[in-house]
Amino acid sequence: MVEATKAGFLDRTLRNLRNAWQNIAGSEYGAETASMRPHLPDDDIPRLRKQMLACLASRGGEVSARARAAALGRAYLNLDESGRRRFLTVLAQEFDVDRPAVDAAIAAVLAAADPDARHRAETKLKKAMEASRLRLLTQFNGLPNGIKFLVDMRAELLSLARQDPLFKPVEADLKALLAAWFDVDLLELQEITWRSASAALLERLIAYEAVHAIKSWDDMKNRLASDRRCFAFFHPRMPDEPLIFVEVALVSGLADNVQHLLDESVPVQDPQKADTAIFYSISNAQKGLAGISFGNFLIKRVVDLLALEFKGLKTFATLSPIPGFRPWLEHALSDGEPRLLLPAERKALKQVADGSRGAKGTLKTLIGNVATWHQDATVCEALRGPLMRLCARYLTQERRPDGKVLDPVAHFHLTNGARMERLNWLADTSSNGLRQSAGIMINYLYKLGEIDDNHEAYTGAGKVAASSAIRSLAKG
Amino acid sequence: MVEATKAGFLDRTLRNLRNAWQNIAGSEYGAETASMRPHLPDDDIPRLRKQMLACLASRGGEVSARARAAALGRAYLNLDESGRRRFLTVLAQEFDVDRPAVDAAIAAVLAAADPDARHRAETKLKKAMEASRLRLLTQFNGLPNGIKFLVDMRAELLSLARQDPLFKPVEADLKALLAAWFDVDLLELQEITWRSASAALLERLIAYEAVHAIKSWDDMKNRLASDRRCFAFFHPRMPDEPLIFVEVALVSGLADNVQHLLDESVPVQDPQKADTAIFYSISNAQKGLAGISFGNFLIKRVVDLLALEFKGLKTFATLSPIPGFRPWLEHALSDGEPRLLLPAERKALKQVADGSRGAKGTLKTLIGNVATWHQDATVCEALRGPLMRLCARYLTQERRPDGKVLDPVAHFHLTNGARMERLNWLADTSSNGLRQSAGIMINYLYKLGEIDDNHEAYTGAGKVAASSAIRSLAKG
Amino acid sequence: MVEATKAGFLDRTLRNLRNAWQNIAGSEYGAETASMRPHLPDDDIPRLRKQMLACLASRGGEVSARARAAALGRAYLNLDESGRRRFLTVLAQEFDVDRPAVDAAIAAVLAAADPDARHRAETKLKKAMEASRLRLLTQFNGLPNGIKFLVDMRAELLSLARQDPLFKPVEADLKALLAAWFDVDLLELQEITWRSASAALLERLIAYEAVHAIKSWDDMKNRLASDRRCFAFFHPRMPDEPLIFVEVALVSGLADNVQHLLDESVPVQDPQKADTAIFYSISNAQKGLAGISFGNFLIKRVVDLLALEFKGLKTFATLSPIPGFRPWLEHALSDGEPRLLLPAERKALKQVADGSRGAKGTLKTLIGNVATWHQDATVCEALRGPLMRLCARYLTQERRPDGKVLDPVAHFHLTNGARMERLNWLADTSSNGLRQSAGIMINYLYKLGEIDDNHEAYTGAGKVAASSAIRSLAKG
Amino acid sequence: MVEATKAGFLDRTLRNLRNAWQNIAGSEYGAETASMRPHLPDDDIPRLRKQMLACLASRGGEVSARARAAALGRAYLNLDESGRRRFLTVLAQEFDVDRPAVDAAIAAVLAAADPDARHRAETKLKKAMEASRLRLLTQFNGLPNGIKFLVDMRAELLSLARQDPLFKPVEADLKALLAAWFDVDLLELQEITWRSASAALLERLIAYEAVHAIKSWDDMKNRLASDRRCFAFFHPRMPDEPLIFVEVALVSGLADNVQHLLDESVPVQDPQKADTAIFYSISNAQKGLAGISFGNFLIKRVVDLLALEFKGLKTFATLSPIPGFRPWLEHALSDGEPRLLLPAERKALKQVADGSRGAKGTLKTLIGNVATWHQDATVCEALRGPLMRLCARYLTQERRPDGKVLDPVAHFHLTNGARMERLNWLADTSSNGLRQSAGIMINYLYKLGEIDDNHEAYTGAGKVAASSAIRSLAKG
Repeated sequence: MVEATKAGFLDRTLRNLRNAWQNIAGSEYGAETASMRPHLPDDDIPRLRKQMLACLASRGGEVSARARAAALGRAYLNLDESGRRRFLTVLAQEFDVDRPAVDAAIAAVLAAADPDARHRAETKLKKAMEASRLRLLTQFNGLPNGIKFLVDMRAELLSLARQDPLFKPVEADLKALLAAWFDVDLLELQEITWRSASAALLERLIAYEAVHAIKSWDDMKNRLASDRRCFAFFHPRMPDEPLIFVEVALVSGLADNVQHLLDESVPVQDPQKADTAIFYSISNAQKGLAGISFGNFLIKRVVDLLALEFKGLKTFATLSPIPGFRPWLEHALSDGEPRLLLPAERKALKQVADGSRGAKGTLKTLIGNVATWHQDATVCEALRGPLMRLCARYLTQERRPDGKVLDPVAHFHLTNGARMERLNWLADTSSNGLRQSAGIMINYLYKLGEIDDNHEAYTGAGKVAASSAIRSLAKG
Repeated sequence: MVEATKAGFLDRTLRNLRNAWQNIAGSEYGAETASMRPHLPDDDIPRLRKQMLACLASRGGEVSARARAAALGRAYLNLDESGRRRFLTVLAQEFDVDRPAVDAAIAAVLAAADPDARHRAETKLKKAMEASRLRLLTQFNGLPNGIKFLVDMRAELLSLARQDPLFKPVEADLKALLAAWFDVDLLELQEITWRSASAALLERLIAYEAVHAIKSWDDMKNRLASDRRCFAFFHPRMPDEPLIFVEVALVSGLADNVQHLLDESVPVQDPQKADTAIFYSISNAQKGLAGISFGNFLIKRVVDLLALEFKGLKTFATLSPIPGFRPWLEHALSDGEPRLLLPAERKALKQVADGSRGAKGTLKTLIGNVATWHQDATVCEALRGPLMRLCARYLTQERRPDGKVLDPVAHFHLTNGARMERLNWLADTSSNGLRQSAGIMINYLYKLGEIDDNHEAYTGAGKVAASSAIRSLAKG
Repeated sequence: MVEATKAGFLDRTLRNLRNAWQNIAGSEYGAETASMRPHLPDDDIPRLRKQMLACLASRGGEVSARARAAALGRAYLNLDESGRRRFLTVLAQEFDVDRPAVDAAIAAVLAAADPDARHRAETKLKKAMEASRLRLLTQFNGLPNGIKFLVDMRAELLSLARQDPLFKPVEADLKALLAAWFDVDLLELQEITWRSASAALLERLIAYEAVHAIKSWDDMKNRLASDRRCFAFFHPRMPDEPLIFVEVALVSGLADNVQHLLDESVPVQDPQKADTAIFYSISNAQKGLAGISFGNFLIKRVVDLLALEFKGLKTFATLSPIPGFRPWLEHALSDGEPRLLLPAERKALKQVADGSRGAKGTLKTLIGNVATWHQDATVCEALRGPLMRLCARYLTQERRPDGKVLDPVAHFHLTNGARMERLNWLADTSSNGLRQSAGIMINYLYKLGEIDDNHEAYTGAGKVAASSAIRSLAKG
Repeated sequence: MVEATKAGFLDRTLRNLRNAWQNIAGSEYGAETASMRPHLPDDDIPRLRKQMLACLASRGGEVSARARAAALGRAYLNLDESGRRRFLTVLAQEFDVDRPAVDAAIAAVLAAADPDARHRAETKLKKAMEASRLRLLTQFNGLPNGIKFLVDMRAELLSLARQDPLFKPVEADLKALLAAWFDVDLLELQEITWRSASAALLERLIAYEAVHAIKSWDDMKNRLASDRRCFAFFHPRMPDEPLIFVEVALVSGLADNVQHLLDESVPVQDPQKADTAIFYSISNAQKGLAGISFGNFLIKRVVDLLALEFKGLKTFATLSPIPGFRPWLEHALSDGEPRLLLPAERKALKQVADGSRGAKGTLKTLIGNVATWHQDATVCEALRGPLMRLCARYLTQERRPDGKVLDPVAHFHLTNGARMERLNWLADTSSNGLRQSAGIMINYLYKLGEIDDNHEAYTGAGKVAASSAIRSLAKG
């Protein structure tokens, strides 16, 4: 007898139920907001303010307040960009911390006579320092997909706050809320496979992949072949939205070329024979969760899972981009090449240039034509020495003002306790790879016994863990 | 804390477990078959026979016998086409019904003195008439995906039996087995959605779609939009393999053009406002289940489900191809046009032709250029009358020797109790549509109150249910 | 936001949908059966017959026929015992094989001139030998829980057929149908745990347990503790109904006492330290599947699963009842004790008796008081020798006319290839254990390497695999 | 082929994986805590402190810190009551807010020159006011079932804080953390049914039921019959632990007797014919979530779901206990009856008493024998008037110092916007019912249109919504 239609039918029934609630909210609880126009002109602001106040006043109790907040959130979704900015401006200016109340609470703390009184006064001060909008933001969780709504709202706030500091406190409020909800141990680690993942989820992976673009569904399928693994963290209330995901290849020996790794025509290997797991892509999928990090947890838990499933795995490493190398090099070259290059390198480059173009070859001119230099074997040969040396130097020695390494990917892996293991020449000859790092990639090695020490040495004294090979390269 | 990896991890663990069993089977139970060569030369036949006999002998009990059969099935999978033919030849010739035993059992039936003795003798006769290979075929179910193995083996047998009647009895044995296992009420009806269906399943739909090819993943997604539905029957032991699936569009009024229906740029409609459900594609997905039909059940259960979800639906109809029209027409035209065309039609066609090519226009020449005639408005205008009339005649009057209508799709829907409702001109201008039916499509109407009567009238007296419009058309 | 209510809500929605279909069936398709009375008086028989014929006539096609069969099945469920007998009598008498048609088909077979003609004639004969009721029975599968309906109907037929051979052919038809549907490789092996099994399922286990009654929910929970396992086979279309289930204890050494094994106050052991898996209960749950056996598959697959999970397991054995020992002993004693007992045994028994009751002790009198003898240490001591010896003899030497061992449990395990390993004195002192086997239990050992040989030796020559200890015991 | 063992096998595999992590934590990260003794003597405190500091120091990064916290949490689970108190004392005293840092941060806030500086200073102050233990508490989430660990720890802290204010700040820290994680819109509403709920879950319902004890599994099953519903909120990371659950009966008319409602021998009604949903039990299941309330959301969402499923439901009401009535009455009677009773009531009571005991009847003496008075029809008749009047007065007029009603259940429902609808005499004659409220129960009515107004009137002016019947009763 007819069984199921599980996915579709129940799903829609409950969605319709939620819509019904929404409509109630729209009529009963959303009278103020129903007629707001997309660009939220001045005329609409008083109604907006009134609805916001109504949410906070809790008329009818918290259930009704959430219904009103849902109506408000729905109105927000209908706003255009300028309307949203105006909406968030009201939130920033009019639902901020009550400063006189904070001052009074501070006075009470300072006047507290004994520890117990002090504790009570501090509790009140903490409460006073919470902006009233925090409660409103929390109520938005009552929207269908409310938590995704808030994640996306923070992405918008982050963008606005870069233009205007007015939005920073709102953004900070929202970040604190999301940081609590996205505590790493509230998340679920899931493996993503071609057989089990829905098309809707894979479509999102394709869209969110940030390191090596997924070019087609065939490319996606190839990344889920039996010698590949893909894992992602999910929030239980956002089951269709990956938060961060990692792609892994099970291979023999350290992989040294990403085009080869992603080549759909390369036959699938027997994963039981692999000795190395290569993490070749890690992508954050939600802009609105910037600064709330799970990447380190993801890598280490995936290492544990893979080690459990494949007894033959000996090495866990990445094949990573070096996104800051070329930008740094361009900048360094602008001061003139003599500072950067060794005499022998300069000389060698000149030779090449003479032959190929009839002009004096320089590093700058040679790699100038981003798209083609790597196809000329002679040029490649001449560039390999200086570029590899400079790249090793960039990675290990160039620092931010706070003493951390300049390259963001390097900073991430060093913070996780990995070590720089090997530089790979012509490892990514995609236009992106050439533009970012002159085609060079690096393997970071996660070695169980030394992760804690590496982390400690880096986060403390800024010491970079690197193989002797890379260290030698950097010295030239 | 790490949760899940449900799909992937457990799946593989159990797969490995099965492989372990397989390997045991390979060594312990499959010694005979392990070394068989892909083309199964004469030298290998004795070992094959020995293994087949071992399965039937049940040494060690049924558990061991299934292990041996699994080893045998694995060997079959490694054979090439000629090897498989030889394998099945052995099955056909050497594991057939034991004729002397049948004769003896028949004698016992004829000699039975009383009803009880007769019943016992008949039971023995039935048993004697079962070919010994039937037991072997059943044992193959113990393979991983054993049921799919058998479905695919029947597809091969069907193809072989068309060349050589030797294979017919094996094919018939297998059909009987599968018919029992695929009883419609053992199947599950599932709705397929973009959010819930796995990529692996959708990939199969794309491959199996037999009516209007799915051109891309975007096309697939469009067919699962909120104003579309897709349902399939599944066997619980073949969860990733649809047996038959139907695609439905929720629209207003009878759809008259399939390109429009499938156009990804057409905005999605609100399905709650639809008054008509159009079944625009039904595809059998498993060749090996030919002759075991569930299409009628699928249509009627989907009608029930849709009626439950959408109270506004008044009409359930198809937009169907007419695959046999052009072939029939070509054949009919070979006898000369005068018999087919009315004088007025002939005259009109000549006019057109004079103008456009300078030669006498005929039906044959005008539709001769399959790819382009429909783009010429004058030609279209002239062809419309005769083609629509002839198509209506073909559908309603042309018959097979058994009195049923000639068109296979028409036969399917009439058997289900539908009625021919409307012919649509230029409804499918794809090259396939033009080639099959000169671009004409038809709506079959499923009207709750008349389904049983229509079925009865058709399967009994061969009476075709058709609207008066189609009837008039046919008369000309 | 509201999520779920998955189980309940969807479940009922679909149930209501099915009920709606049923009601349609009740009105449209079930007019004949709606008014039938529970005891099905003669007046109702014509309407019953008419509805049965309507199902077979397929008016309106197979979909309508199943709807009519569903109405008929619903009518059956409303019948009382005598009504059901009358219903099944009609099925047996009026929808039997068409004998003249069989005779004609036989004649055609005998007249066939060539192999192909013979094959075609045999196909027709097979078809002719199918009773028309078989199709009706298949159609009942369209009822909600149709497959359970048919399983239960066969249980009723088995019971009726014991009284009247008229019902045997119907029962045989149904058995053939169910045997195909319950092919072991269509079933699912599931582990049953306290955390995952529904209360409804556990309630059924409690009801179906046939060896050592489950006395309470606490007893049930104890049998699912972390050092226990419970597995069952399920049919995918009867997900709430176990077909057969086995209970396993993970222990150290061969268990020798079932009360100890089931004692809820015994602390849970660490299963990782266990070296032995004891199968202490196997229960068939569906009477209607009698003769369609999966017990051997269940045991062997559970052995495989346990071996996969617990690397420390070295021994797989049962702790089994000996249900036929006391009945056999009673019978043997009725011929007088001298034949059964050794002189020394007789003498020893007399001593005991003198002391305890002042009368001459005999085996008969001593075990006469079933409830108490085992509590008297002196009596126990005296009985141990002769009872253990006789039990070993009973198990290994007493045979059925077909040469198989008399004890049904022994026959089951020997057929599976197990060997009799050890007899355990006072191993089951429940009233049932004392009544069946004077408290003695036996361990059957499943030893991977010898299962096939044991099976072969037993099913062939009737040779019983037994340890030397048991063999010695039997010799006395 | 073997399928599943889904629940059990994967579950344990992942549990073992977690245990493996735990063991690593135990050796590598938990060296300090491994040897701590259950009562945590003074000698162990330095090691405890060292481990706590190690968690906060984040040596090796956050992943390692969580591993250390997990080791610490495991040590906590091994402590006895006094050990836990000492553990929490260290947390309270040594990982409190850094007061000098707070003072410095306050000074910075007061000195801030502009809004942006003020915001930055406030951000720092907020951070400074967070006790360092908060981070440690959050890290405990990394334990298996970490969130349940923290919920239970808060239950212990609540109990300790009642004895010693030292624990209040720790408890407050934990409450804030849990309040964020248990935001109502992060929870899942699930229906609990006999067919789908696991035995483990039902066992917890039986244990947690706080209003009308569930006496047996049969009682549990009866409460899940087809005319009953049970719903609970769950946290996605605590799937086996209900947070709060409600039991509903679908009946005709307002229920007036809870024993009748729970009587297992009363036949199940057709829920489609019910016009009233009676919420007869609401139980909070987690002591550690006290003060984080979802009861109002639960009731209103269940109302919505029921209204969706049963179109015939017109009335949503409770049948509720009045737990504070008898205690209040006892207290009031201690001031003498004349103040409480009307002259006519006093007189009537005397009559009764004279007859039955030969002493002057008073309210006090008559209801003194809690267990039996309700069985004496004459006594009942005499008591009904005064007790019903006093109960109505107690419910509507007796107030807490903050102006809210004295009865806690009444306060809960009035806050939710319900109204007092009807008092029911002899509605709960269990010993608990007689002891709490002299057997009287009340129906609170949830009427969609007036919920918000009722809530507002009560939370604002303290106005009690009551039917005119109850109002009249109270007046006498």
